[in-house]
Amino acid sequence: MEKGRLEAFTDGVIAIVITIMMLEIRVPREHTLAALRPEVPLILAYALSYANVGIFWNNHHHMLQASERVDGRVLWMNLLLLFWISLMPFTIRWMGETRFSATPTASYGVVLMLAALSYLLLEKALAACNGADSALARAVGRDGKAIASLVIYVAAIPLAYVSAWLSMGLYVVNAVTWFLPDRRIEKAGATAKTA
Amino acid sequence: MEKGRLEAFTDGVIAIVITIMMLEIRVPREHTLAALRPEVPLILAYALSYANVGIFWNNHHHMLQASERVDGRVLWMNLLLLFWISLMPFTIRWMGETRFSATPTASYGVVLMLAALSYLLLEKALAACNGADSALARAVGRDGKAIASLVIYVAAIPLAYVSAWLSMGLYVVNAVTWFLPDRRIEKAGATAKTA
Amino acid sequence: MEKGRLEAFTDGVIAIVITIMMLEIRVPREHTLAALRPEVPLILAYALSYANVGIFWNNHHHMLQASERVDGRVLWMNLLLLFWISLMPFTIRWMGETRFSATPTASYGVVLMLAALSYLLLEKALAACNGADSALARAVGRDGKAIASLVIYVAAIPLAYVSAWLSMGLYVVNAVTWFLPDRRIEKAGATAKTA
Amino acid sequence: MEKGRLEAFTDGVIAIVITIMMLEIRVPREHTLAALRPEVPLILAYALSYANVGIFWNNHHHMLQASERVDGRVLWMNLLLLFWISLMPFTIRWMGETRFSATPTASYGVVLMLAALSYLLLEKALAACNGADSALARAVGRDGKAIASLVIYVAAIPLAYVSAWLSMGLYVVNAVTWFLPDRRIEKAGATAKTA
Repeated sequence: MEKGRLEAFTDGVIAIVITIMMLEIRVPREHTLAALRPEVPLILAYALSYANVGIFWNNHHHMLQASERVDGRVLWMNLLLLFWISLMPFTIRWMGETRFSATPTASYGVVLMLAALSYLLLEKALAACNGADSALARAVGRDGKAIASLVIYVAAIPLAYVSAWLSMGLYVVNAVTWFLPDRRIEKAGATAKTA
Repeated sequence: MEKGRLEAFTDGVIAIVITIMMLEIRVPREHTLAALRPEVPLILAYALSYANVGIFWNNHHHMLQASERVDGRVLWMNLLLLFWISLMPFTIRWMGETRFSATPTASYGVVLMLAALSYLLLEKALAACNGADSALARAVGRDGKAIASLVIYVAAIPLAYVSAWLSMGLYVVNAVTWFLPDRRIEKAGATAKTA
Repeated sequence: MEKGRLEAFTDGVIAIVITIMMLEIRVPREHTLAALRPEVPLILAYALSYANVGIFWNNHHHMLQASERVDGRVLWMNLLLLFWISLMPFTIRWMGETRFSATPTASYGVVLMLAALSYLLLEKALAACNGADSALARAVGRDGKAIASLVIYVAAIPLAYVSAWLSMGLYVVNAVTWFLPDRRIEKAGATAKTA
Repeated sequence: MEKGRLEAFTDGVIAIVITIMMLEIRVPREHTLAALRPEVPLILAYALSYANVGIFWNNHHHMLQASERVDGRVLWMNLLLLFWISLMPFTIRWMGETRFSATPTASYGVVLMLAALSYLLLEKALAACNGADSALARAVGRDGKAIASLVIYVAAIPLAYVSAWLSMGLYVVNAVTWFLPDRRIEKAGATAKTA
């Protein structure tokens, strides 16, 4: 089965999620900079979420680039990943409207954790579909980075009840570790091409 | 006529429908887990609907993969299918806001039934366009699964007036029967490729 | 310049317009069929508009299929067409919320007229870009159908002040004349392919 | 890395931004032309913003057409550009709802300036990725047009506090200078193709 349509559909969903989040920012009634100030934490949360979704898209791009085929299981794992990504605007809005309370901040961590888990499952499905000898399967191996992310998200969830800012800090730190695309896959993709 | 643009347009509409549904979930005013509880049935209904739309997309993907060409009639049947799919967020919202009353739950069944019917018509249009000898036409034959779905939806509509949960149960059962992609078409597609 | 991206962008805008229109339908507070009744004229108006936008998409699909290249002028004419199409949800909502009053119904005609005019300009830009000898240029010639549409829309605008239903009737009649894809272009596209 | 998916994702985000802006126009309660009048400045602002986003899309189209490959840095610069573009509906709504007050009008300039800056960074990333000898790198050189735009936006921001209409005038003038696609890149693209 060709991968083009899976990519196009994923791009559509992620483009909508990323754009809708920005549209959710409340327009201040007043026309002063001061009126914008109460929106600043929310705008920063949106920027973080934009980065998070952008990271998922970038890594998805690299992973699919290194894949040669997809199957039914890959399609479903991808839909599962998109399900959690499409829940992000909801949790970010809840977090913003309750001024970063514990439960909403933890719920953002839950959604991020489930998205990271689905990404891992998608990676495994792709490796299985492309064969144990494929460039992707060899490149991925035991994906330490994704597992580290999961650990960070799992830690951030209870920490939200200690301090929401501690959780937010972990989300930011984790975003930075995912910021750079997966060099191993990128290299494997390059190798696959030159092979 | 090439099928690429039909696929891209369908992906666009389905990506929007699937994402918008998640955005319709009301953000609780309170920041407690208890405040999220009244939204739980609606969130489950959205998850079911996400699965339903995902199933349509997956089967559409398989069906188009096995097709070699499209024509004007296919374009219109596809637009008809998308029309019913784009009505799903409306009925699911109505169902949620009236706490699963009889008529809204039945109306969700009506929309699902019309979508399933349009899917069947699209299948026939594709079979006609690709010729009676095509892999797709031979694979589809008399599509028992789609007809079974129609029967289930037709049954679920009046049953909503007996118990909305009975209808919901049928929607879930039916979703499961559609969950796996159509093996016959998948095989036919594979055969067509290797032929 | 390749035409693929122009098609993809157009598909994106039209997919959003077509889906958003359906999302604008107000969910009734009551859970009875009677509560749905006041929404029926608006739902029919949305269905008409869905058909209208679907027609533009179908014809756009056929026209681009018959084209071999695009240029800067084509890009701008296409953006102009999309501008008017993206105004349709606004006028249809205004029409619906004022229960088909004269001015909103006329404004829907104005937008349809400007979209039809832009479609004609896009057709001319494509014919110029593909050369006077191109299959598309020969097929289009003097596009009687588009000119007839323009005349119908121009007539529908003042008629809205006599009776909104008269205008709506003209919109429906015109939709029917555009319903079938342009056989001439379809043939030309086929000829171009076999040539 | 192939550029197709970068283009598709960009098209998705821009299509949503461009369509959502039109959907934000408030439907008048009254059914008279007079009721539409207070919305006219906002509709014109939306039309200007539609033109602005259309210009970014057109130039992006030309620039990517002349590029042969993309890399991770290009992906991130593109996401940065889309971030500012996706903030446009927010600032345009704020500007409209405060009847073109100083700060909202300046904030629109800030977002346009940051988008123009990101466009320039994307251009540099593409030139670096395609090599100093590439058609794109030679065509772009020192992009005087983009720098002129930046200067205009920087000037428009403080001028909004003198007169919002002065700023708006500058935005319009600047839109006109970007209206035509970058001839140098278009030529380079043509040269690259014939080479």
